[in-house]
Amino acid sequence: MLKTFFSPHSIAIIGASTKTEKIGGIILNNLLANRFPDQIYPVNPKYQQIKDLKCYPSVKEIKKEIDLCLIATPAPTVPAILSECATLPKPLKNFIIISAGFSEAGPAGQKLEQQISELAQKYNLKIIGPNCLGIINTQNGLNASFAPNNFLSGSIGLISQSGAFAAALLDLGKRENLGFSSLATIGNKTVLDETDFLAYYASDKQTKVIGLYLENIKRGPEFLAALQKICPQKPVIIIKAGVTEKTQAAIISHTGAMAGDEEVAESLIADCGGIIAHSLGEFLGYLKIFSYFKAPANNTVALVTNAGGPGIIAADLVAKSKILNLHEFSTAEKFYLQKQLPEASSFGNPLDLRGDANHVRYEAAIKELSKNKKIGSLIVLATAQVQTNPPAIWQTIISAQKYCHFPVVPVIMSAIIAKSIAPDTQLSNFDDPLYAVRSLEKYYLWQNKKNINIALTQPVKISTRQKKNNHYLEQIKNRQRSILLFSEALYLGQSYHLNILPAPRFNSLDPQKISYPTVLKIDSDKILHKNKEGGLILNIKSPEQLLSSAKILQTKFPQTDLIVQPQIESGLELIIGLKRDNNFGPVIMLALGGIATEIFNTKIFFSPQGTPKYFKEKITNSPLGRLLAKQKIDLHLVIENLKLVSALALENPTVKELDLNPIIFYPDQPPIIVDIKVILE
Amino acid sequence: MLKTFFSPHSIAIIGASTKTEKIGGIILNNLLANRFPDQIYPVNPKYQQIKDLKCYPSVKEIKKEIDLCLIATPAPTVPAILSECATLPKPLKNFIIISAGFSEAGPAGQKLEQQISELAQKYNLKIIGPNCLGIINTQNGLNASFAPNNFLSGSIGLISQSGAFAAALLDLGKRENLGFSSLATIGNKTVLDETDFLAYYASDKQTKVIGLYLENIKRGPEFLAALQKICPQKPVIIIKAGVTEKTQAAIISHTGAMAGDEEVAESLIADCGGIIAHSLGEFLGYLKIFSYFKAPANNTVALVTNAGGPGIIAADLVAKSKILNLHEFSTAEKFYLQKQLPEASSFGNPLDLRGDANHVRYEAAIKELSKNKKIGSLIVLATAQVQTNPPAIWQTIISAQKYCHFPVVPVIMSAIIAKSIAPDTQLSNFDDPLYAVRSLEKYYLWQNKKNINIALTQPVKISTRQKKNNHYLEQIKNRQRSILLFSEALYLGQSYHLNILPAPRFNSLDPQKISYPTVLKIDSDKILHKNKEGGLILNIKSPEQLLSSAKILQTKFPQTDLIVQPQIESGLELIIGLKRDNNFGPVIMLALGGIATEIFNTKIFFSPQGTPKYFKEKITNSPLGRLLAKQKIDLHLVIENLKLVSALALENPTVKELDLNPIIFYPDQPPIIVDIKVILE
Repeated sequence: MLKTFFSPHSIAIIGASTKTEKIGGIILNNLLANRFPDQIYPVNPKYQQIKDLKCYPSVKEIKKEIDLCLIATPAPTVPAILSECATLPKPLKNFIIISAGFSEAGPAGQKLEQQISELAQKYNLKIIGPNCLGIINTQNGLNASFAPNNFLSGSIGLISQSGAFAAALLDLGKRENLGFSSLATIGNKTVLDETDFLAYYASDKQTKVIGLYLENIKRGPEFLAALQKICPQKPVIIIKAGVTEKTQAAIISHTGAMAGDEEVAESLIADCGGIIAHSLGEFLGYLKIFSYFKAPANNTVALVTNAGGPGIIAADLVAKSKILNLHEFSTAEKFYLQKQLPEASSFGNPLDLRGDANHVRYEAAIKELSKNKKIGSLIVLATAQVQTNPPAIWQTIISAQKYCHFPVVPVIMSAIIAKSIAPDTQLSNFDDPLYAVRSLEKYYLWQNKKNINIALTQPVKISTRQKKNNHYLEQIKNRQRSILLFSEALYLGQSYHLNILPAPRFNSLDPQKISYPTVLKIDSDKILHKNKEGGLILNIKSPEQLLSSAKILQTKFPQTDLIVQPQIESGLELIIGLKRDNNFGPVIMLALGGIATEIFNTKIFFSPQGTPKYFKEKITNSPLGRLLAKQKIDLHLVIENLKLVSALALENPTVKELDLNPIIFYPDQPPIIVDIKVILE
Repeated sequence: MLKTFFSPHSIAIIGASTKTEKIGGIILNNLLANRFPDQIYPVNPKYQQIKDLKCYPSVKEIKKEIDLCLIATPAPTVPAILSECATLPKPLKNFIIISAGFSEAGPAGQKLEQQISELAQKYNLKIIGPNCLGIINTQNGLNASFAPNNFLSGSIGLISQSGAFAAALLDLGKRENLGFSSLATIGNKTVLDETDFLAYYASDKQTKVIGLYLENIKRGPEFLAALQKICPQKPVIIIKAGVTEKTQAAIISHTGAMAGDEEVAESLIADCGGIIAHSLGEFLGYLKIFSYFKAPANNTVALVTNAGGPGIIAADLVAKSKILNLHEFSTAEKFYLQKQLPEASSFGNPLDLRGDANHVRYEAAIKELSKNKKIGSLIVLATAQVQTNPPAIWQTIISAQKYCHFPVVPVIMSAIIAKSIAPDTQLSNFDDPLYAVRSLEKYYLWQNKKNINIALTQPVKISTRQKKNNHYLEQIKNRQRSILLFSEALYLGQSYHLNILPAPRFNSLDPQKISYPTVLKIDSDKILHKNKEGGLILNIKSPEQLLSSAKILQTKFPQTDLIVQPQIESGLELIIGLKRDNNFGPVIMLALGGIATEIFNTKIFFSPQGTPKYFKEKITNSPLGRLLAKQKIDLHLVIENLKLVSALALENPTVKELDLNPIIFYPDQPPIIVDIKVILE
């Protein structure tokens, strides 16, 4: 679908300029520099000619086939230009709007962006931007952007919501020897967004690894579905900014989008196989490892070094890894290494070749290790010492990629190495062993599909239950209420077979006829946190105490009903919750309840569309899962309740938040939900 | 004490060589390159002359004052050389042994190192090494090492257990623009160790920040005491390798030392104000910030950028920091910024100057921000975009250091910046905003002494109690026993007023006369984990049940005594422990007990020499502290028990391990110790 954007035969540049400091001038120069495509039509009423190209006063004067139209004129002019292009006898369909000044720039800009969106719908236009840097395709030389023209070509497909981030990466790529297949900056993504480009890169043969810089995700569920499809074939590395409330303010002004909860985003993206980078260093590292190296043959790592200290630092990282293992050389393996290497070497892991090792000794070590099928990855460290020639060791490592069945990852900790990498070298160096190890971890997980959890099922179809419940909740909303009373929430929950402990009204009961101890609480559609507000009295032991407790609550909350619940046996208190995320829609949460809730972060987030296997694996691999096992709680009962809340979430879009808190689990009896809170949109 | 090493007037090089690939040749060349010191005496019977220097057949032929003696001959020759030097008419006292082949190289080498150690003691010799790179003093041009001579001078004092690590840092320093005041590689540290050099650097005026690479710590308590004294005056950055059991094997072969528990080391070093770096990137970042930048004026951070995405990435890091705050610009502050900057700028934090910002716009922004007293640090980000000239922005940032009352930290994400830094520039760039933010955190904590917890008191003097207990434990040890019986541990614990729940022997009791429920357990000096081995029966409700339980245990553990303990009320189960660390000696631990112990890491380590305030602050700032507060447990009771165990630890060096598990705390009554385990050395 986006192929025409990346391989156009003809381009019109509206706002082209003779001035090389103007965006319209820079883009024109970039296109001309590589002479791609053949047909370039500058449009600007101010000029008759730019360089040796005819310049047109308007698009309609071109009267030729135009595959792609770049717009770099001031924001207020853009809607009229789009209209004109879309209503030509041969209407134009594909646009890149470079211009800024839209929703990122306040109310007037928002209105302009709205107009663009409407025009796109009306005329079925494909639009990249506005407020973007443009696109680049290094395979055919297309630089339809205002990024400087001196970047490396390679196998990374980059999608960036920030033009400046993309520019920085192209620039740093020169130092880090990172090459790009294509680049798309998507700006305010009024029409085309990250999900569209994911699909394009998935089928682009030159792209081995996809890198994304995102601030928000426009169509969360579609994005996840795309990830789920692509990630098993191609690694997708994501760096997500705007993770905190404070920086979300900066995002709104930056791209006019509202970001969601970061924990939720990370959790769901990882479930679908996306690889999250938490820093620029991780992002660069992951792009390097996937773009240039063989996949690890297994999770065992060997290290070779000429430097004891750095070797140990790297070995520490492997030994501490939950994913990788440090290889232990057997006596036989040591014997063969000893035949190749000087006696003074240290035959452990790291295999220390000593400070006087030259590239010949490195090669002897690597060749011997290449015979070892137990090794899954090799990290080769070097520091510049007396007899060391880092460029020669670098060449040795390049050759080793061919004859080793595992990746040979260079960590050459020297200032001179960057200067000695030839630009066409298909390899990157890692400065810091930290990123070499983390990158190998991600590669191993991806290669073995251990990073993919989710199997999204289709949403449930509209059922009678759903119709009935939607109608019930609609009626409550119509009365301008958003917090459900206990009885209402009980009704809703019971229709999904949630085992909620009933709580009859105090007024309807004979205090003599109920069993003690019991609990008295208020039931209000105004007060959300009963406990904090003092609307809850526990451990009532007699009818007299019940009556006096009722008096206390009635005095404190005069307009409020009271409900009575038997006090139940203690067990493991969990919380099951539902929230609606700005990016992804409904999300289900499980966490430890009770006093430890705020002290230990045990939250696990789930997509309500996940399969039971997905729920099970996420819990089993968490600290909470280990606690459940220790307490001998049947995991299926936990999953069952999560699935019931998931169904409720999918069927009732008006439910904004729901909390089962606590839901008490026992080793030997079914769980009991003591309280349920429901909040409508 | 070490001044002569770093400022010698005369040096003898034993093992000097004409060959430039030999260590003895390289060192001589390094010394000659800077012509320091004036008097250099090569020693080697093979030569009459090296370069234009007279070469001596042995040290005794020199017959001149020799301040420092460098030894670079094969390991087996070293003890005899030392003997010769130490018994000259004017004995030599100061040595650097470069030679390898000592304890890192197996039993023969260990013997040689032992000889060196004995000679040092006998003749009162100061020795650096063996197995080291040598030392460097950039202030007087002394390069008494075999590291290449092209490094930068500056204010970092480096101490490295690994010569290769030091060499790598000098090398990377050229790229990162890091300059060194002096460098000491300490190798196997047979005589002089990290603690000696800490003291030297503390008084060295050129050294602003001390960097340490360590694998083990030789004299833990002295090291901590030195840190405690130095850290408030000079920041000490420590990167510690060999943190896992597997890599400790590599360390033994590397420097022949045994490393201790990493969690303990990190905890106690941090308590004394040491700043731990967890990766090379952190180490470089911390050295940069302390060596070139003003201290943050407060913990509020503002950001200026020409790139939206990278700006948000950096702002995220500040917003997520537990130490730093993201500045929020007031309306008035925005008003003044708007007067200086184009309308299209985004006046949030990050302050986005837009992609077309040149250095003039950056300067206008920084100048305006420099008037703002609320800002404690400024991070200036830049990516190379169309109108950007990173070298000009770099110059703007250099000037800004002078007129700003806060540090102006450059994050120029561009490949060209490294090339445009003049070698005498007193400033470093940060590539990755992550390290800029982490470095500012550490600087703020250090500047405000918020990183220092400990106040070591003197160990308790020998008391009657101590004598009695030492004797008591000695007797047990003499019987070849190491695990104490409950009654013995009770005796020991009670002498420190630990409130241990008594447990009389089953045989001594009348089952009819005790209160139920009760607990029956085995008391063995062979089985350490009663519960795991099934030697514990809880919740015994009657005399009959007690008798039948006793039968079960007697059958299972025929040779073992049984003890009876009343089953006590449930409360918050904690563990208080004592262990002896290889590096630091006795360490006290507090953790959550019960079922959650292995799931949540709540361990806190303490020095037994800490003040009550130290104990209190460490607990209060931990998740466990928040849990205690929630449970309304009196912190003083926790501290009291920790102090009692501390006294026991300090007074009884034969106690290798001790566990109070569980010690049960209540909101309204004193804690009860249900079990105590004591293991002797």
